[in-house]
Amino acid sequence: MAEFIGIDLGGTKIRGVLTDPSGRVILAREVLTLASEGDEAIFSRIASIARELARGAPGKSTRPDVRAIGICAPGPLDSAKGRILVTENLPFMDFPLGPRLAELLGYPVFLDNDGAAAAMGEYLHGAGRIAVDGARGADPLLYLTISTGIGAGAILGGKLFRGKSSNALEAGHMTLEPGGPPCACGNHGCAEVLASGTAIAAAATAAAAAARAGTGPGTALSAWQSPGSKEAFLAASGGDRVAEAIVSEALGYLGICAANLATLFDPEVLVVGGGVTRAGPRVLEAIRGAILERCPRVVAEGLRILPASLGDDSGALGSAALAAQALDGSGREAAPSFGNAG
Amino acid sequence: MAEFIGIDLGGTKIRGVLTDPSGRVILAREVLTLASEGDEAIFSRIASIARELARGAPGKSTRPDVRAIGICAPGPLDSAKGRILVTENLPFMDFPLGPRLAELLGYPVFLDNDGAAAAMGEYLHGAGRIAVDGARGADPLLYLTISTGIGAGAILGGKLFRGKSSNALEAGHMTLEPGGPPCACGNHGCAEVLASGTAIAAAATAAAAAARAGTGPGTALSAWQSPGSKEAFLAASGGDRVAEAIVSEALGYLGICAANLATLFDPEVLVVGGGVTRAGPRVLEAIRGAILERCPRVVAEGLRILPASLGDDSGALGSAALAAQALDGSGREAAPSFGNAG
Repeated sequence: MAEFIGIDLGGTKIRGVLTDPSGRVILAREVLTLASEGDEAIFSRIASIARELARGAPGKSTRPDVRAIGICAPGPLDSAKGRILVTENLPFMDFPLGPRLAELLGYPVFLDNDGAAAAMGEYLHGAGRIAVDGARGADPLLYLTISTGIGAGAILGGKLFRGKSSNALEAGHMTLEPGGPPCACGNHGCAEVLASGTAIAAAATAAAAAARAGTGPGTALSAWQSPGSKEAFLAASGGDRVAEAIVSEALGYLGICAANLATLFDPEVLVVGGGVTRAGPRVLEAIRGAILERCPRVVAEGLRILPASLGDDSGALGSAALAAQALDGSGREAAPSFGNAG
Repeated sequence: MAEFIGIDLGGTKIRGVLTDPSGRVILAREVLTLASEGDEAIFSRIASIARELARGAPGKSTRPDVRAIGICAPGPLDSAKGRILVTENLPFMDFPLGPRLAELLGYPVFLDNDGAAAAMGEYLHGAGRIAVDGARGADPLLYLTISTGIGAGAILGGKLFRGKSSNALEAGHMTLEPGGPPCACGNHGCAEVLASGTAIAAAATAAAAAARAGTGPGTALSAWQSPGSKEAFLAASGGDRVAEAIVSEALGYLGICAANLATLFDPEVLVVGGGVTRAGPRVLEAIRGAILERCPRVVAEGLRILPASLGDDSGALGSAALAAQALDGSGREAAPSFGNAG
């Protein structure tokens, strides 16, 4: 049988799956990214996860016939060359992840943006797999993820939409507040500095420090040294006003981000994923509310807003599927491939 | 020969062309829209332009063999049913423009968004017709128009991208200022109320009135009763501070609108058209500057920002091309067609 490996390189963890050609997960593996240990240490962990998956399920006598590895990472990337150009939450700088991995392991490797890969995962195997007329999946499908950063992906006409440089849908760097705070990308008022998990955590941590120093209002957040977005949502739901203000401001911007995406892509389904969505129904409710309030009526009407259904696997599963598509030529115009096919 | 009629229904004028199958203009006609005269009067003018084009060039003995009419109008539309749902600058309300015109004239009629049609016009015959590798046109191509309103369109993979309800790329209703002024669409801080020709004219007219009443600073704008965007740009270039503030604020928002579009669509070419661009190079310069400042580097690099090259014909030419595509089945999944084929 022909198997595929999909790997999702995230700011917190590296998740890998081995799939059969239909996308069924045969084996899954996960390790912490430990970004502070540097690019080479992370690369070694990616390689060892891939090697482990390539050996197949323990106790099986036949080794899987792995045809390709798909890997996804935060952008911007040079997908055609398999390079991570620069990422805010990982220590890579113009790193040839695809070629290095292909050379080391002997499989073709295909690199895509994490939002894009997760969009494909949810389209093929997750929330987007909705029978419309009993025949096809939801299309256009938009995927929006809110975790350490904010990312997105779009499936248009059954295919991943990549754009000229394979960096389409960098939704985290949409400007939402013209005079807003600076973003590491050099712009001001990006969605990512206003509404990501990192943005919420930074505001919560600052509020906690101010409360402890007596320079800001008292808040339940000061119980933590560095409260994250999870703690901010928790304190807000407990009635803490400071936390509530932080959360509702971030969700306001997140809603605008989602509404702008919907106004431009007029999707059939918007899938929302990422760690911040685990804070509870508030996140999706804020997105739903903003879309009703801000999008043209014909765009909002009939648009289904669904939580991601593959949990931690959407990026890895999508990457495996994109690698399979690239190999058979159905997925991209110019299929990059590196190293020696295994 | 098989000819096609393309009609661009604008807030100010109705422009129509008769084209050969390759898109060459055989005949062009234009009348004022005179929106204040109501929907039926405008409908009559559209019909008479179409009839005149269908008769062909005067003095020719053979009547053109018109196969279909493509018409474009500001959205939101119900493209599949040929209905204009509601437009801010025209007196139509759920108006069955396609079916009415098809019934009256006996040709199939196809209705599309004006930004979408102009995108196709510029892609096939205008600024997007750039040889890349000597073979293909620019793709993805994004078209942004700034006139009475703000509209856009995208050609992705050689096809017009329509979205679920055929209302994708409603760029005028992207939120750019969360707490911004109300828009007729019900939202706040839409691009259209911050950066369109109408927005600039409204600010200029208010400033002129304030200057005349002595409640605002003196300005050259007060020489006009109702200065438009043209007068605002003129006064600004003459050193008038009030006009300069109005123009530069609008261009700031326009730049963000264009940068957000580029960040999401990662296009190869961005074509900029519409009446406001006639104010001079400032408009394109503002867009170029914002894209360099606000887009991810890989998106901004190599992105060509070009003025529309078809002038007033991009919408009409694009509509004729979309009608031809619809008829031969290459353009849309479900080809709507109305009335009796001629």
